[in-house]
Amino acid sequence: MSESFPEIASSLVSIARDFHARGWLLGTSGNLSAVVQGEPLRLAMSPSGVDKGQLLPEQVLLIDERVQIVSDHVAKPSDESPLHICIVKERGAGAVLHTHSIWNTIMSDLHSGDGGIAIEGYEMLKGLQGVSTHVHREWLPIIENSQDMLELADRIGETLREHKAAHGLLLRRHGLYSWGSDLPQAKRHVEILEFLLETMGRTLLIGRKH
Amino acid sequence: MSESFPEIASSLVSIARDFHARGWLLGTSGNLSAVVQGEPLRLAMSPSGVDKGQLLPEQVLLIDERVQIVSDHVAKPSDESPLHICIVKERGAGAVLHTHSIWNTIMSDLHSGDGGIAIEGYEMLKGLQGVSTHVHREWLPIIENSQDMLELADRIGETLREHKAAHGLLLRRHGLYSWGSDLPQAKRHVEILEFLLETMGRTLLIGRKH
Amino acid sequence: MSESFPEIASSLVSIARDFHARGWLLGTSGNLSAVVQGEPLRLAMSPSGVDKGQLLPEQVLLIDERVQIVSDHVAKPSDESPLHICIVKERGAGAVLHTHSIWNTIMSDLHSGDGGIAIEGYEMLKGLQGVSTHVHREWLPIIENSQDMLELADRIGETLREHKAAHGLLLRRHGLYSWGSDLPQAKRHVEILEFLLETMGRTLLIGRKH
Amino acid sequence: MSESFPEIASSLVSIARDFHARGWLLGTSGNLSAVVQGEPLRLAMSPSGVDKGQLLPEQVLLIDERVQIVSDHVAKPSDESPLHICIVKERGAGAVLHTHSIWNTIMSDLHSGDGGIAIEGYEMLKGLQGVSTHVHREWLPIIENSQDMLELADRIGETLREHKAAHGLLLRRHGLYSWGSDLPQAKRHVEILEFLLETMGRTLLIGRKH
Repeated sequence: MSESFPEIASSLVSIARDFHARGWLLGTSGNLSAVVQGEPLRLAMSPSGVDKGQLLPEQVLLIDERVQIVSDHVAKPSDESPLHICIVKERGAGAVLHTHSIWNTIMSDLHSGDGGIAIEGYEMLKGLQGVSTHVHREWLPIIENSQDMLELADRIGETLREHKAAHGLLLRRHGLYSWGSDLPQAKRHVEILEFLLETMGRTLLIGRKH
Repeated sequence: MSESFPEIASSLVSIARDFHARGWLLGTSGNLSAVVQGEPLRLAMSPSGVDKGQLLPEQVLLIDERVQIVSDHVAKPSDESPLHICIVKERGAGAVLHTHSIWNTIMSDLHSGDGGIAIEGYEMLKGLQGVSTHVHREWLPIIENSQDMLELADRIGETLREHKAAHGLLLRRHGLYSWGSDLPQAKRHVEILEFLLETMGRTLLIGRKH
Repeated sequence: MSESFPEIASSLVSIARDFHARGWLLGTSGNLSAVVQGEPLRLAMSPSGVDKGQLLPEQVLLIDERVQIVSDHVAKPSDESPLHICIVKERGAGAVLHTHSIWNTIMSDLHSGDGGIAIEGYEMLKGLQGVSTHVHREWLPIIENSQDMLELADRIGETLREHKAAHGLLLRRHGLYSWGSDLPQAKRHVEILEFLLETMGRTLLIGRKH
Repeated sequence: MSESFPEIASSLVSIARDFHARGWLLGTSGNLSAVVQGEPLRLAMSPSGVDKGQLLPEQVLLIDERVQIVSDHVAKPSDESPLHICIVKERGAGAVLHTHSIWNTIMSDLHSGDGGIAIEGYEMLKGLQGVSTHVHREWLPIIENSQDMLELADRIGETLREHKAAHGLLLRRHGLYSWGSDLPQAKRHVEILEFLLETMGRTLLIGRKH
């Protein structure tokens, strides 16, 4: 590990505040995590029910792979922690970010019947890790929402195994999950996918003119 | 009371500035309150006609249940103070926030014929106090606007008694009222309802394509 | 005068930066003024061609009613200074603000054939000086754009005399002028009119559904 | 040269952060450059793959006309450096800015069949260097996107020679390039063109009503 827990907590808070300002984490929604140690897993995780625009580094929890708090906190990790842990394991991700934006909510609903959204032909795609041309076709799977977190984690696991090249996934009328090898890469992926979802949504509107 | 008036005034100002930056309190519109003491009622209340982006903690007034200033201020409490007091009493709320956003104005007009807006199927709903699933159906009542504040307070009282599960209400072409047990919860509710109103408004636009 | 030139320059800069952040003064567009002294007229005026997001109080010019600089500056007052002076004289205004927003540009074009926009039924209207009910009908005149500033000042003068109750006016595909007895009131009027233009523009879009 | 490399790097970073906040440089997209010395060319250039919201002046590279780093950095200049150098040479520009906004992406796609977008009749056009009236007709050429940077630089060169009055150009589904004699002028041009593209895009939507 090149970074310590306090440094990671600090970066995580900085992203939380930035995304809250953009309206992607309103109403205490969304959650953020980053791997502090791989074996055994130690995951820095945002607490449940906290205003992401006012999150403090000392509020960031450290949990293990069974979602038990191993840091010295009396708090509750996000309910969606099992989804983060699932993604970390399936993808070897170093960070997982989950946003609730207006455009990801709309697009996850509009395309739910297709099981996902194909994004292609945009230069912005090149910012996704391993993508080297705008000709790339990114498939962003959409999973039906559920309150059963273990079942949802199972379905996310299946989806990730089925779509090995995906850089993110949508929960219908719920939000976007994306990830990366570390927090900066995960942040980059979220910004790119949010940008592309809004661009495609607005294009649907304006495109009808022609 | 766990918090003193200066602490509450400070939190109230922080929310006012944040919401003003988002465009929800432009033109000195909107108002904010929080209970400092229950019996007899002492309510921290934003003054009338002040730029919410420049509000200072020392400008926050303390009023009683007859809207009389009990703090040492020569100022005028918001004209809508009776509406805040009504909500505090009907709901046992610890804080009441009133925003004028573009989307709450539009949606309050578009759905006024229905008497309210049904919001359901969104994960964001889970952030409303007592709601545990996105399957929840929130009814956001819409009340015709009026300049008679006492009459409006009466109608708000009736509406709150009729819709006991509501977390907010709209005044037509005017704005949103929401509340909570304290300022953070009320802020959370406003962010969630504003998010959902904008999401539903934009979905109406884009949904027509299909 | 209750305020000195340095204080007024400082308030003017604060508004310039806030409006630039909102996208209402991009590309060095727009201009701001405030009366420092009435007889003879001394007007604090933003200089021409300056980035409003980086304006400094010491860059604010002091001009007389013939647009001559009376402060110790080697600079050029805004080309539209005659329009500000015209409004100050016609309305007895203490401050004049001119914004270029996306929505005021669109709405000034869309309604140019009608010679203006009627705004009524919105609670936000109550923030306009002298308006006490949302039932108020505000007429926002639209004037064809021109590069002849003296001719434009003449037409603005005529329009203001014809529409004595107007709190602002639009130049077609150019921008909004609003004013007030002082800078805070002028800022309030701009925020309200910008809010209402965007609300009405978005309502046109969404309203077609029904 | 009136400014040193550290001063230029500092201005470049300030623009990068501002544009990132506006959503024009998300996901490490976009790049910025400014001429530090003309003969031989020394260009301050943003590094590849860096979060523009967190760019630091000491990360700004100095490159020569063959895209070789001449400053003391172990880093990679933006892949699109040849496009910047091409524009600097063809236009004698002192600064080149490249943004990825939602509206420039949409409009570059929508009008790609026309080979460009005609912008006329807007007061905002006057902020473009050398333009003195809103009657001006600006032609913003659109070039098909490519990953072959040398070929793309060639096509940009041809386009600039063909459209000598253009203040910017679009790469289809990729972004906007604009430039100026120095960083403030280039920033002004970007803000104006972004404003006009969004205004025209939204006008297309709303205009259909009539």
